[in-house]
Order: sequence, then structure tokens, then C-alpha cells
Amino acid sequence: MNNKAMYNLSYGLFALTTRENDKDNGCIVNTVTQVTTSPNRILVAVNKKNYTHDMILRTGEFNVSILTEHTSFDTFKHWGFQSGADIDKALGIPFKRSANQIIYLPEETNTYISAKVISTTDLGTHTLFLADVTDAEVLSNDPSVTYSYYQQHIKPAPEQTSKKGYVCTICGYIYEDDPLPEDFICPICKHPASDFKPL
Amino acid sequence: MNNKAMYNLSYGLFALTTRENDKDNGCIVNTVTQVTTSPNRILVAVNKKNYTHDMILRTGEFNVSILTEHTSFDTFKHWGFQSGADIDKALGIPFKRSANQIIYLPEETNTYISAKVISTTDLGTHTLFLADVTDAEVLSNDPSVTYSYYQQHIKPAPEQTSKKGYVCTICGYIYEDDPLPEDFICPICKHPASDFKPL
Repeated sequence: MNNKAMYNLSYGLFALTTRENDKDNGCIVNTVTQVTTSPNRILVAVNKKNYTHDMILRTGEFNVSILTEHTSFDTFKHWGFQSGADIDKALGIPFKRSANQIIYLPEETNTYISAKVISTTDLGTHTLFLADVTDAEVLSNDPSVTYSYYQQHIKPAPEQTSKKGYVCTICGYIYEDDPLPEDFICPICKHPASDFKPL
Repeated sequence: MNNKAMYNLSYGLFALTTRENDKDNGCIVNTVTQVTTSPNRILVAVNKKNYTHDMILRTGEFNVSILTEHTSFDTFKHWGFQSGADIDKALGIPFKRSANQIIYLPEETNTYISAKVISTTDLGTHTLFLADVTDAEVLSNDPSVTYSYYQQHIKPAPEQTSKKGYVCTICGYIYEDDPLPEDFICPICKHPASDFKPL
């Protein structure tokens, strides 16, 4: 068994956003899949460590912004490398609201999809949300970014970011300090410190 | 709502193979997703019209061959455009067997994954299989093909294949005859005749 074999599965990258009472929030996910067209339903698996996860579990509604190849690394950092439990991610960021009043990213996005959860499955570290698509609009013709494109063209090369630190062997996230705390969890892919190696 | 918005989700393309008694079979799918890494589990949604679907439902085991950008259109035709209910798809085709004795495609593939079903969810037109990864090996460094790459570089342009006929607006499959039978089902994406338009 070669665990790196799983890297060859192709994924897109998406901003998954939601709203609870007056709080907007979102995170980056790579697992949005249309599973049936009649009815139009999608699946998304969300790590339980994401604050967005808990909000969707409670509200049952979310938007997916399909990110394009023109998405900046700052956008991935903003939505992926910090938690909505600590900050207001919608503050100072360009967004619009769809009919469900949930935010989506009008820039660096070619499509937004609004969805309503119809069932959840506990997958241990993640929850799988099966959801009806309630709205979907195309915003641009820019190509959707794949995880592979992100790794090759958007993520800064390690040399450019730091001379010392640790790199997550799962997703490439760089922790720019030494030592790496034993209980560190990768802010992108949520893997533990044991999956990091020194730069 | 723009139903074409769903096209911007990024997918890979995979040969999904299985074995029941002495019968080997397989089909093409675009929905293989790793949902958790601890344990290593994947999801695949399979249309119930695929004979492979019924076999996996009975046997609970399958392989996924991750197809590369070098996969020929003939391979997609062989595995995707005909049913294992009618022919022996393993006949005259290069294949190998993994430890579970199920075939995988050693050529035009960069990875094979063996998996054992742990639960099934009825999604109406499709069944969703959640499965433990029992084996996975990397076979080459060729890039995985995406559905978008297939549409742009592998699928023959309509002009090259036919002067008359119908094209599936969902997946681009060309039916090279006239008229299109009313009960026709697209052999690739299983959409009905109402989703076809004249060339």
C-alpha cells in the first residue's frame, strides 16, 4: 500500500460558506461532487475541526464558490488558514449574498452553488453532507482550479517563504517556526504534526 | 438556476472494475473521492444502470484505476460505451489482477486503488458506496486526466465523427444516426434522449 497513491485523485478547490444568525463564515474544501442530476444533489465532506462544519450541521444550508485558476494564494490563506471561531472572515473581503442570504465569493470564482442539507453521515474525522442544489449561477468562464494546479502554480515554493520550519507532507502547508508543537494540526488539511517534515 | 453551473465542478475519470465468480467487468466513473485519511476511505457514486453497479452491490469489492491524460478515446469507448451484461470487457484488453483478484488497467493509468464497501446509500438514480481502501499503488507519474481535459483533448470533435446525429448536452457523447430513439439512454452519463440536441 502506497498512501501517496491517493494524491492522484483529481479534486477542485472550493470556498464553502454558511451563515448562522448574523455570523458569516467559510472554509476551503476539496470534496464537492455532484452525485445525481435528477434531483440535482451534491455531496461535500467537511472536517469536524472546521468551525464552518458545526455551523452547517446546525443550519443545514451552505454555498459553494468554485474557485478558478486565478485565485490568489492570499484567498486560500484567508479562508483556509484561520478559523471563523476566532475572526470574522467576511470583514474587509469582497462578497455577495445569494437568495439564501449566505455569502459567496464573486471574484476568483466561476460559479456559485446554493444547497440545502438533506442528510448527514458521520465519517469519523469528517461529516458527509448530502444536499439539494437550490440555486446555481455561472459567474465567469475562467477555468476551475484543481488541487494539482494549486500545488504547481499557486502555492509558493518553500524556498520563497522560509529558510526554516516544517512542511505538511499531505498538503504542502509551511509552518514557519521551530520547533513544531507536538499537538499542531495542519490548518489546511487538518493532519497532525507527525505528517510534517523539516524543510 | 443555471444547470450548466454544475459543469464547473472538477472531476477525474476512473475505470471502476469488479469481479463476481469468474466474471470480470468495469465501467467509467467520475466520482471517486477520498473522504477520510484515518481510516483511508473513499466514496464512489455509481449509476444503477451500470452492470458494474449490481456486481459491486453483490460482491462489496472493487478496484479504481486512475486514468491519465494519455488515455485513448478507445479506452473510454471500451469501458464506458458498452455494457458488461452483453460482452466480456476483459477479453483482449491488457489488464492485471491486484491481491483481491480484481482486474485493474496497468496501461494509461497512474494508480490503482483496491477497496471494500462498508456501507451503501440509495441516491435514487445512483448508489453511493463508502469503502475502505485495502490497497493502493502508484504505477506512473503521468498526470491524472480530468473530465475537463477529456472534453478538450481526448473526445473527438463532433465534426470529425459525423455529419448527422445527436449530441448529449450533458457529456458530449455523439449518437451517429437519425432519428434518436425516444427511449435512448446516453451510454456515458446515462441521461435520457431529452438531454440530446441535433448536431
